[in-house]
Order: sequence, then structure tokens, then C-alpha cells
Amino acid sequence: MSEYNDLKSAVEKLEIMQKKMAAYNHATGLLYFDSVTVAPKDTTAGRGQTMGILTEESYKVFVNDETPKLLEYLKQNEEQLDEKIKLQVKKLDEDYKKISNIPMDEYVQYNMLINDAQSVWHEAKQKNDYLLFEPYLNKIVATVRKFATYLDSSKNPYDVWLNEYEKGLTMEIADEYFAALRTELVPLVHKVMSSKKKIDDSFSYKNYSVRKQEKLSDFLMEVLTIDRNHCNIGQTEHPFTINFNSNDVRITTHYHKNNLLSSMFSVIHEGGHALYELNCDDEYDFTALSGGTSMGIHESQSRFFENIIGRSRSFTNYLYPYLKKMFPVQFKDVTKVMLYEALNKSQPSLIRTEADELTYSLHVMVRYELEKRLINGSLSTKDLPAEWNRLYKEYLGVDVPNDTKGVLQDSHWSGGAIGYFPSYSLGSAYASQMLFHMKKDLDIDALTQKGNLKPIVEWLKERVHKYASSKTPAEIIQICCNEDFKPHYYTDYLKMKFSSIYEI
Amino acid sequence: MSEYNDLKSAVEKLEIMQKKMAAYNHATGLLYFDSVTVAPKDTTAGRGQTMGILTEESYKVFVNDETPKLLEYLKQNEEQLDEKIKLQVKKLDEDYKKISNIPMDEYVQYNMLINDAQSVWHEAKQKNDYLLFEPYLNKIVATVRKFATYLDSSKNPYDVWLNEYEKGLTMEIADEYFAALRTELVPLVHKVMSSKKKIDDSFSYKNYSVRKQEKLSDFLMEVLTIDRNHCNIGQTEHPFTINFNSNDVRITTHYHKNNLLSSMFSVIHEGGHALYELNCDDEYDFTALSGGTSMGIHESQSRFFENIIGRSRSFTNYLYPYLKKMFPVQFKDVTKVMLYEALNKSQPSLIRTEADELTYSLHVMVRYELEKRLINGSLSTKDLPAEWNRLYKEYLGVDVPNDTKGVLQDSHWSGGAIGYFPSYSLGSAYASQMLFHMKKDLDIDALTQKGNLKPIVEWLKERVHKYASSKTPAEIIQICCNEDFKPHYYTDYLKMKFSSIYEI
Repeated sequence: MSEYNDLKSAVEKLEIMQKKMAAYNHATGLLYFDSVTVAPKDTTAGRGQTMGILTEESYKVFVNDETPKLLEYLKQNEEQLDEKIKLQVKKLDEDYKKISNIPMDEYVQYNMLINDAQSVWHEAKQKNDYLLFEPYLNKIVATVRKFATYLDSSKNPYDVWLNEYEKGLTMEIADEYFAALRTELVPLVHKVMSSKKKIDDSFSYKNYSVRKQEKLSDFLMEVLTIDRNHCNIGQTEHPFTINFNSNDVRITTHYHKNNLLSSMFSVIHEGGHALYELNCDDEYDFTALSGGTSMGIHESQSRFFENIIGRSRSFTNYLYPYLKKMFPVQFKDVTKVMLYEALNKSQPSLIRTEADELTYSLHVMVRYELEKRLINGSLSTKDLPAEWNRLYKEYLGVDVPNDTKGVLQDSHWSGGAIGYFPSYSLGSAYASQMLFHMKKDLDIDALTQKGNLKPIVEWLKERVHKYASSKTPAEIIQICCNEDFKPHYYTDYLKMKFSSIYEI
Repeated sequence: MSEYNDLKSAVEKLEIMQKKMAAYNHATGLLYFDSVTVAPKDTTAGRGQTMGILTEESYKVFVNDETPKLLEYLKQNEEQLDEKIKLQVKKLDEDYKKISNIPMDEYVQYNMLINDAQSVWHEAKQKNDYLLFEPYLNKIVATVRKFATYLDSSKNPYDVWLNEYEKGLTMEIADEYFAALRTELVPLVHKVMSSKKKIDDSFSYKNYSVRKQEKLSDFLMEVLTIDRNHCNIGQTEHPFTINFNSNDVRITTHYHKNNLLSSMFSVIHEGGHALYELNCDDEYDFTALSGGTSMGIHESQSRFFENIIGRSRSFTNYLYPYLKKMFPVQFKDVTKVMLYEALNKSQPSLIRTEADELTYSLHVMVRYELEKRLINGSLSTKDLPAEWNRLYKEYLGVDVPNDTKGVLQDSHWSGGAIGYFPSYSLGSAYASQMLFHMKKDLDIDALTQKGNLKPIVEWLKERVHKYASSKTPAEIIQICCNEDFKPHYYTDYLKMKFSSIYEI
């Protein structure tokens, strides 16, 4: 290629391009973060225009006549590149093939649609008015389906998206995975439901001042070893984590006056995501390999801290005196055992983010079934709420009283994330497998009992976090466990834990 | 020009370019806003990189081979353009001539310097460590001086910047203006100081919960007729207003537990700025004519509401029952008259933003003198704190105890705003002149007594706000007052008000 004098200048071009893309991602990420945290309500239009323009500009930085030539040249000289650059080229080449198939105007249009849809979803959820949101979701589904054919027209559209969020995942694998879970979990859930053991968690629904809950969040962040100079907490309807680079991560939570555990576990969950991002090696920042490698691995980290650590007996022992001191009135008659049991109380419920560890995957299965049908065209967005309610009855045995507590509860679809939900369940399964192998190196109970999470975080940093996106999910599992992904660790873990709690 | 098929496509090109520039401004504005409101502390580096890249991209959208041709073509066909477009072309043409003289790398470098400097200034102020900040200020002064020669090498550099913030302003005019103020104000200040009247404002330094102060802010925003769906309040070290477009404006304040009036008047002051931005006609959004026309006119609006309305006897009468109800303990022995006098208590002090209306311009004069000398090279940044302290002693008769309360108190210089300060004083003078003429149309006392500010806001909207940047400061004064700017309204107003309060 005559355009490049030497490899060095080509690599420089590649770096500049990636830095530019990172800058646009930072800006559009911040516009989104602003919109759901502190922005005034009626400011969507101007933000939408800015998002549209910046997305278009960012698209042009990547998709143009120059990029394929640059990538081709670098591939041809691959043997002279260092490993890091080689991986960047590989990732960018894959991305290019996919994204360059999406016409720019459609890509920009979609991003503007998402911007509007998120704001409408907020309103619809608040007003319990699904019909307000339905036209937007309808357009999102159509676009997601269309984009799938752009990304890989040889595959089933839903498979395309499963693979986007979790490289290697297909409906075939997911169907089998969820079927296995169902076989193991449904009988267990039934046993738990019919157990005579009754758990009293009423204390957790007493009045907890938001100010004190904020202090508790600060305490939990410290226990999680999160450096607050690089990560803070905002407040949003739906908790989430966003990273601008490995030194600038934000998590959000939602405080409920009459629910201690909701925000507490949101903070631990999002804190797990944040640790992953904060511990990514700096050298991946501002490149195509920045940030966590997949949604499934990301969820493995959040759910490791939320459930495996956060809801363990030993961590409860550690937390108990702190909570008792902070909330002496509400905890007057609460024992350590009561606290442990309360935060592991299992009962079929309506809200995914507040579901217990055992029934959680049933919530995911509902969404998995519905997404599959939405994308395959066998379910219309008009019929979605009725189907949602029907499946909640079938899988969880609960009646959905309104769409706010039903189909409108999650933000994902309003943001275009269809195919994401299965990764939540997969994440739990990965986490259980990691736990099994971590136990060979660390006395986890002894550490969490003392609130000393540093060695645990370090273990994960060395095997998961530091690699950012330079390894595939399967490679990460191999590094952690020295074997392939196996779902039985998850069901073993749940059976052991809940049999003990419910004395079955 | 063969490149344009018709005028229509040229105008379209112009619009797209302006929208792109507005999008970059939105993004970089938000990055700044984030950095001073909610961002974690150690996140400057990543943000700096993003700012640098976006600033460079934005620069390229404007400064390139195409823009001068486009502007030239449009100027040649000027008679066929509608008035709005004609004004855009005129403004962009002026801007282009200036900005295209600044080499891009220097422009980007400067923006990155500013990003760093603001963060260092924060730290320096907190630590009372001027030397930490001095190297940054030194570079800023050098760059500001150099950029002035790029903008207009025929003028004195400080004149260039005065003119940037307030079109038409020169050192000659400012020297004369401040000399006139000095002649009128210094004897008045002396009389006030030697007056036997003693004002007791100790109640305003009692303990005021931040939560209640937040409620007071909400109340004041409502009284100011600010639509909270388009404008909210953040918290920062130094209060300010930022606008992303006329439908998305943010103000900030700083709550002090032991000072009721500080945040209260910050909110009214920034609220005045916000009203200006919110009331700009939508048609100017996303063009070169968006937002307020000059710093002086902007300050006229903020200071109109802060001082002329906010510190008036009639508004005090309106506020009194609200404050008494909100703070019954602190206001136990406070009468309406005490409140009015307290918020007009005049005494030479250290902090500009908390100075009373009468001595305020003396604070500005100190900065004006120092800026002039910094830019003209007769004062080094190393010697600045000593000179600051000397002038405070000379003009205000106060001893500066430390740099935090001295030279480090304002954020302006850390943001590169040198030549801005005079506009604060000019703004007050404009506001007094507007008041005089507004009184012909409205019974201002009767309206403020009832907290009915709507007709006042409307008067200003029709004569000032709605025009955005499509009129010069001088044109705005003409529209409001049917005469040129005359400083005597300001001194007349102050003499009348403070003679009455201090019974002199």
C-alpha cells in the first residue's frame, strides 16, 4: 500500500482512530448518563440532536474508504505487530465488517430513536402507560431485527444478538442451558415453596432514611475496595454502571425509603461491574479492547459480589454489627441468622432486579422467551404485555398487577438491548464456576467474615479484569478454571445453599 | 462559485455546519459541567483527552478550506438571504477571521491546558497553595496574550479580550468608566462606613440546614418563573450557569451551613442568567447567534434579579413571611426591616461573590487593574498574590489573610477568562439603566411586593432575552432605553438606595 510509508505510521493512524472513537463514546456516554441522572426533564430534543450528530461523526471516523485499507495493510504485516496491536486489528476488522454493512443514516436514525425511546419509557413506566411506549418498542424491534441481517445475514437474527452480547452464544446453547436449569431449579423452587421454614424479613421493609442508606453505600464501596476518586454513585430509576475509561467509572442506585436491601444489593451488584472496569489494564484504554469482554462475564462479576459474596453467611456476619449500629431501632430484634435468611428469602415475585438468587433465572427465562419471539416475528409488541403476564403466571406463579411492575420494569429494551438478558443468568453460572476454583486458592469464608475482600478482588483482577476485552468469554473461563464452561456448578451451588437455608 | 448549485444548498451547508459546532459545544460543555458537579476527583486525564479530541474535531468543522468559500459565496448573494441567515453569515465571518488565525495545535493545547488548570485551581484553592496553580496561570496568561495577537494584532492584547467579552469595550472606555465610578462611589462608601447606623445581620450566619436551603432554592426558582423542566440546580464550589440550548440550562450553587444569604443570592443571580438563556428565541438555537449576546448584558440580567429585585425593600417584604415560616428559630427576632437591611449591609470585604451591592465594583476594579498589568507584562504571576493583597488594602481597606480568600477565590482565570471581570460591573450599570426605563411601563415595587415577577421577566424577554446574540450590547441598550449606555443611572441608583439605608 503506497499510502503508508512504514508500519509505524500505520499503527499511529490506528491509534489515533481508536482514540477518536473513544472520545465520541465518552461524550455520548456522558450525554446518556446526564439524561438519566441530573438533566431537567424536557431536554430530550436538543440532546437527541447532539447524540445524532456525534454518532454520525464517530461512525465516519471508523467507516470510510481509508479504514479497510489501513486494516488490510496491518493484517498483511501482522507478524511484525506486537500482540496488543494484533488483537486490536482483529477486533476492529470484525467490527468493521459488521458495522460497515449498516447504512449510516439508519445507524444515526436508530441512535436518535433510542434517545427518544429511553425518555418515553421513563414516562410510560411512571404513568403505567405501555401504549405510550409501544410504538417506540415496535420500531426498536424492527430495527434490531434489520440490523441483525446487516451484521450477519447468514444467521437467525436473535442468534446474531446473543452472539453480540456473549460471543459464542446461540439459541441452541441457550435453549439447552435454560432447559437444564429448569430441570434442576423448578423442583428445587417447589421444595422451597412447600418447605415449612418461614423467613421473616419484615424488618427490611421498615423506614430507612435515604441519608443513612447513602452512608451505607459509601461503606459498601469501601468494603468492595473501590477507589472513590475514580468511581462515584449517582441516583437513577434503574441502577446501572457506565465507564468512560478505566479511571472514570460511575455506578447508580435507587433508594427506597421502605426497603433496605434494594439499594444495598444494587450497590454491591453495580460495584462488581465497576471493579471489572476499574481493574482493566490501562493499556487497553482508548482502544477497541477497552472495557469488559462480554455481558456474561460482566454479569459474572456483578453477581459474584452481589450473591456469592454479598448474600453469604460469612459476609452477613461481617455486615451485621455495622447495620445494627447504623439502624438500632429497625434492627432491635434482628439476629445474625435472621439477617442472613432475610437476604436469601426465596419467593416468586414480580421484579427481576429484586428477585432472590434462586428464582432469578426464571425472570430471565420469561424475557428470553419473549425476545426470541419478538425478533422472530411470532409475537407483536402490541401483544407483549399479555404474554409477559401469562409467562409470569406460568413460570413464577404470580399475577402481574400492572405494566409498571410488568413489561415496563426494565430499561433494556428501551435502550435497544435485546439479547442481553440471557447473559444475566449465564453470569451467575460463570460466577459459581469461578467460586469453585477460587476456593482452591483462597479461604473465602474467612476473608469475607472479616470484610477483607482485597484478595478476592485481586484473584479476579489477575484472571478476569485486567484483560479487558483482549480475551473471549471462553478464554476467561479457561484462565480462571482451567476447563470449559460447565453449568452444573451453578445448580450445585444453588441446591447446596437453599437446601441448607430451607432445611430440605 | 461552481461548488454550489444554488443558494439553497449553500444555506443548508451553513446550517449543518452550525449544528455540528453546536453539538460539539454541547458535548464539551457537558464534560466541563460533569467535571465540576458529579465526576470523581481523579478523572481529569481521560476527560482532557476527550476534550482535546472533540475540540480539534469541532475546530476542523469550522476552520477548513471550504468555510471561507461558503461564507464568501453567501456574502456575495447577501441580498437574497433572509435577515437571520445574513446575521449568521456576518457573525461567522467575523469569527472565522479571528479563529482561523489561531493554529489548530495551539488551540487544542490551550483547551487541554484549561481542563488541567481548572482541576488544579480547585485543589490549590482547597489547600491554600497558590504556587500549585501559578505555573498554570502563567501559561494561561502567556497564551491569552498570544491569542490576542492572533485575533487582532493591531490592538493592545487586553483591548482585544475586553472587546471579546463586551463588544465595543476598550481600556480607554473602561478606565474612564471606573474612574467615574470611583469619583462617585468612594465618597459614598466612606460616608456609609462612618455612618452611625449599625446593621445587625448576625441571624443570617446561624445554622441553616442544607436541606431547607435546597427547598428555598426551589421556591426562588419558582418565583423567578423558571421552568424546572428546562433548568435545574447542581452544586459546585463556584456557582455558575451553563446552557446547552435554550431548552436545556443548568445553574449551580454552593450551600454554606452557616450562611443563609450566600446560596440564596447565588440562586437568584444564576437564575437571572438562566432566564436570559431560556428566553432566547428557539430559532437561534444551534446557530452562531445562540445564547446571550455579551457578558455585560448577561451580567445585567443576573444582577438585575440579584440586586435590583432580590435586594429591594418590596421583594424583602414578599420573602419575609416565607423565610420566617421556613426558619422560625433563626428568624425569631428578625423583622422585615432587619431582613432588608441585613441583605444590604455594606462593608468592605474579601470575597467578590459575597460582596454587597455598593462595594462590589471595588472588587472588580482590583481584578481589572491586575489583569491589565498581567496581560501587558508589567506584572508576573509570581508577584500576583502580593499585588492582589496590596490593592485589596488600598481599594477596600482589608487585609487578605490567605490566598484561598484572596487571589484563588475566583474560577475565571483558571478557565482562561481574562477580560471578563469588567463586565460584572458594567452589567450592574446596564441593569440600573434598564430599571429606570422599565419603571415607565411597570409598577415594579407593587409587582415584587406580591412576588409577581412575570411582567418584569416578560419586559426583559421582549427587549433583551429573545434576541439571543442577534443584537450587539449597544443595540440591546437602545431597544430597552431608547438611548445610549449612560453610567450615571448606576451611581444615582446606588446613592439613592444606600443614602436611605444608612441615613446619610
